[in-house]
Amino acid sequence: MGLIVQKYGGTSVGSLDRIRHVAEKVIETKQQGHDVVVVVSAMSGETNRLVGLVESLAKDPDPREYSVVVSTGEMVSMALLAMCLMESGFPARSYTGAQAQIFTENKCVKARIEGIEPHALKQALQEGIIPVVAGFQGVDSYGNITTLGRGGSDTTAVALAASLEADECQIYTDVDGVYTADPRIVSEARQLSHITFEEMLELASLGAKVLQKRSVELIGKYKVPLRVLSSFHDGPGTLITYEEVAMERPLVSGIAFNRTEAKLSIIGVPDQAGVAAKILTPIGEANIDVDMIVQNKIDDGLTDLSFTVAREDYQKAMSILQKVATSLEAKGVTGDAKIAKISLVGVGMRSHSGVAPKMFQVLGDAGINIQLIATSEIKISVIVDEKYLELAVRALHAAFGLDKEANEEFDPKM
Amino acid sequence: MGLIVQKYGGTSVGSLDRIRHVAEKVIETKQQGHDVVVVVSAMSGETNRLVGLVESLAKDPDPREYSVVVSTGEMVSMALLAMCLMESGFPARSYTGAQAQIFTENKCVKARIEGIEPHALKQALQEGIIPVVAGFQGVDSYGNITTLGRGGSDTTAVALAASLEADECQIYTDVDGVYTADPRIVSEARQLSHITFEEMLELASLGAKVLQKRSVELIGKYKVPLRVLSSFHDGPGTLITYEEVAMERPLVSGIAFNRTEAKLSIIGVPDQAGVAAKILTPIGEANIDVDMIVQNKIDDGLTDLSFTVAREDYQKAMSILQKVATSLEAKGVTGDAKIAKISLVGVGMRSHSGVAPKMFQVLGDAGINIQLIATSEIKISVIVDEKYLELAVRALHAAFGLDKEANEEFDPKM
Repeated sequence: MGLIVQKYGGTSVGSLDRIRHVAEKVIETKQQGHDVVVVVSAMSGETNRLVGLVESLAKDPDPREYSVVVSTGEMVSMALLAMCLMESGFPARSYTGAQAQIFTENKCVKARIEGIEPHALKQALQEGIIPVVAGFQGVDSYGNITTLGRGGSDTTAVALAASLEADECQIYTDVDGVYTADPRIVSEARQLSHITFEEMLELASLGAKVLQKRSVELIGKYKVPLRVLSSFHDGPGTLITYEEVAMERPLVSGIAFNRTEAKLSIIGVPDQAGVAAKILTPIGEANIDVDMIVQNKIDDGLTDLSFTVAREDYQKAMSILQKVATSLEAKGVTGDAKIAKISLVGVGMRSHSGVAPKMFQVLGDAGINIQLIATSEIKISVIVDEKYLELAVRALHAAFGLDKEANEEFDPKM
Repeated sequence: MGLIVQKYGGTSVGSLDRIRHVAEKVIETKQQGHDVVVVVSAMSGETNRLVGLVESLAKDPDPREYSVVVSTGEMVSMALLAMCLMESGFPARSYTGAQAQIFTENKCVKARIEGIEPHALKQALQEGIIPVVAGFQGVDSYGNITTLGRGGSDTTAVALAASLEADECQIYTDVDGVYTADPRIVSEARQLSHITFEEMLELASLGAKVLQKRSVELIGKYKVPLRVLSSFHDGPGTLITYEEVAMERPLVSGIAFNRTEAKLSIIGVPDQAGVAAKILTPIGEANIDVDMIVQNKIDDGLTDLSFTVAREDYQKAMSILQKVATSLEAKGVTGDAKIAKISLVGVGMRSHSGVAPKMFQVLGDAGINIQLIATSEIKISVIVDEKYLELAVRALHAAFGLDKEANEEFDPKM
């Protein structure tokens, strides 16, 4: 008997039939003797419909009013689910962000949760009522409706689980859990029964779409036991763990990738202290986020610097870089929007140095040229030509044995 | 320079183009030097869509959750309109029922407004911000979202106008104002430039769809100067007045009618004290509202009693009446669902006794049999066979000269 926070995403509540199915899953958990707090997203498509209304009226929509409109999506799904639970004889009550007292910073969109006053929800639980909370929304100190940004329903669930000291936070989605790689690209990809928090954080940052980065950060902060599982198929999903058991872990837990970045290079810049800052500051001032940064010093007192940005910022970044190149008297600039970023992630890398050379070898054997490399303690990322993406991911998946159960049986958490 | 509360109904905000048009009308009023508070309904069709979602999930939907779902319709339209005003450079801010502090009784649907704390709205007005308030919704003392029942947006506007002591409450709708009769039935029907509150109250009760009865009651209580006008065509609309100027008023101001009632009769009941109560109490206990009631004493110690109910309650009322007839040893029961109710309304009737005889004469000349008659101080209603409805209304409209401007020029308010 414990307290479980369950979050159901947009596809999980995407139709009235799906909402009825979610009600059954909630009731199942309740009948197993647990208390349940449910967090729901808007029915799939609904947020896009609402954003569409806003965008056809205003080029630069007022953030406060934007949040009022889009927050209604979750209000509808939460109330429909609460109704459905009551129809089956289980007392339930819906809560908007304001009613659940989810307080955010005074910023109407992409607001961060600052605190939750869970009194009303605890009261409901004590009365045997299943609270159904709107994901993705909160209230600021002026009583304005705020939204957390897309994917914010995960954040709501994690913050509620932390605030209520839940025994588990379950994120129901349209995938079965976390895989060694995207199963649409690698047919041998295998679902992981567990993954460490740090690995999950890297995977989220790298664009694996299972969990939003912000919610992963939050679970790390509060050490919320979190499970990702499917609302469409039964199964244990993937549990995110906090204990380090690196020696028993495989070297590489998963492969992430994206095609959402573009690469820019400035070539032959006279090398001097602070040159990287001179190049990247104007980019940052234009609100363009830079991801990977690699600098190569060339022997004749010149240096090359390459970096990646979101692909939609490519043209803007390029025109800024051209101006910078002129003022720094660089030899030139180049760029490539058709790149892919592939990353190996695994806490086992900490204690094994052989991962990077093996990765480069595998890609080399497949005839794939590496354009940029960046590493962190538990991750190696490379940039390659976009056309080699699938080839590279499949070759790496096989070479690191991700299709095999590996040594997960040694994990004490199992 | 005054304060005007403007309410725009569902068809007035029925599309993004219509919302843009409403923004222009609000700005026009603002540019005339007035402060404006706007109340909006949901975009037309939206409430029905939301109710449809609810009804496909639950046969007997929980009232609290029902209100959560349907209240989102007004939230979307209010925020879209606020955004639109801002796009044109006019500061605006949307308010839910809770944010506007419209407090209702603790009853989630068809709740009555108990009070408004207009501090936030007054503050916004002082800052030059146009408040856009969701119609049809409020908040109860527990913080639950409540709804006022269909047409409640008019009530919201009137209550806000009273609370803010507005100089005028303007109800924008898809008709140009109040007519002498429904122009779809009587092509000669004429728009009234003004009408007394009492006449409006009778017309609303009788089913003229311009204003909801509840909002008319409210304007009477607070003597809110109210104007009904079209958001589709320019024009002065119809002003509702409070001063009595009966001598200068035409005898009859308008003709209302409906086809939404059914007639039931119990025949040959042994006449005794309290027999009407014995007949009607079981009907009331079944939550069936009775409208007209007529009792005829027959000379042989028997009495007949007829009454009308909403047509959808006809079968239910009939089966109750049959049981009552048996227990009271009545001779029998009859009924007719195909009836129409036609009413003449006018404060001039108070000082002129000739209206009723003339009405009966006109109908008789047209060969229309009158089934029931009921009168009040400023109204005469008759029940006739439904098939004579149009014929009767047109004959009465002509006979009472409603197609002519009459003596409205004598009204001191003009």
